[in-house]
Amino acid sequence: MAQEIEKKFLVIGNDFKKEAFESSKIIQGYLSSVPERTVRIRIRDQSGFITIKGIGNQSGASRFEWEKEMPLNEAEALIKLCEPGVIDKTRYKVKTNGGTFEVDEFHGENNGLVVAEIELANENDAFDRPNWIGKELTGDKKYYNAMLMKSPFSKW
Amino acid sequence: MAQEIEKKFLVIGNDFKKEAFESSKIIQGYLSSVPERTVRIRIRDQSGFITIKGIGNQSGASRFEWEKEMPLNEAEALIKLCEPGVIDKTRYKVKTNGGTFEVDEFHGENNGLVVAEIELANENDAFDRPNWIGKELTGDKKYYNAMLMKSPFSKW
Repeated sequence: MAQEIEKKFLVIGNDFKKEAFESSKIIQGYLSSVPERTVRIRIRDQSGFITIKGIGNQSGASRFEWEKEMPLNEAEALIKLCEPGVIDKTRYKVKTNGGTFEVDEFHGENNGLVVAEIELANENDAFDRPNWIGKELTGDKKYYNAMLMKSPFSKW
Repeated sequence: MAQEIEKKFLVIGNDFKKEAFESSKIIQGYLSSVPERTVRIRIRDQSGFITIKGIGNQSGASRFEWEKEMPLNEAEALIKLCEPGVIDKTRYKVKTNGGTFEVDEFHGENNGLVVAEIELANENDAFDRPNWIGKELTGDKKYYNAMLMKSPFSKW
């Protein structure tokens, strides 16, 4: 349970893949995609997670977050209850001075979209931006995963 | 994680209180009150719980259910994220031949409403009905707690 501070950016090109030290496959659905109270079920590799997020502050960088791990079979059963549509993506991790970028390469209906997020202790903490980091998307609800499920990138 | 089989009844009078072997105070809110995927946060005495339920079968007696306990402070934080309105009730437990009735006496906007539920291993299992058990409400969505929050008994 924490107040999560994250900044999100568009990613340009594929160079980030050369710098990644880890990648994993993510499938996720939403029991609630209402921004004030999203309830997400995620399968990452062979583990399941439930994550509840509140709405962000004015800048969109800080959101309340609660997460618990669960067995894979429970997550698979809960994914079936989710709202129609599912997010399918590969997550890469890239170290930079000041933190670690999580870079999400979307598949399926969001194919072509790649975004990077960095978690910070304080909203104004400094961090290095690799040259594949594009414009900032922090707080832009269109890029929330819950929104990408309903209004996918391929239909923009 | 289970398929839950429950029958629900209206309760007549206050005689059930004399037969109860336990009672506890329950406060609960909903992160999602959509019947296909309700997400409930409950505080019972000093414990927190998250419970996810799917929609029932045709008779309404069998619903998918997933539940996890959590610390009280986490449940208190999550209740604040819930949809407006909260259910406040006292739950009594009453043993009968064939099972245990959970009798919910509602307060606040649902004051005056008392319902009893019994959990069964099979939908057609027999059980004794005390004389304070009134008409069957199984599957009647109006009596779902998630619905009582939006459309409380005092406004029927």
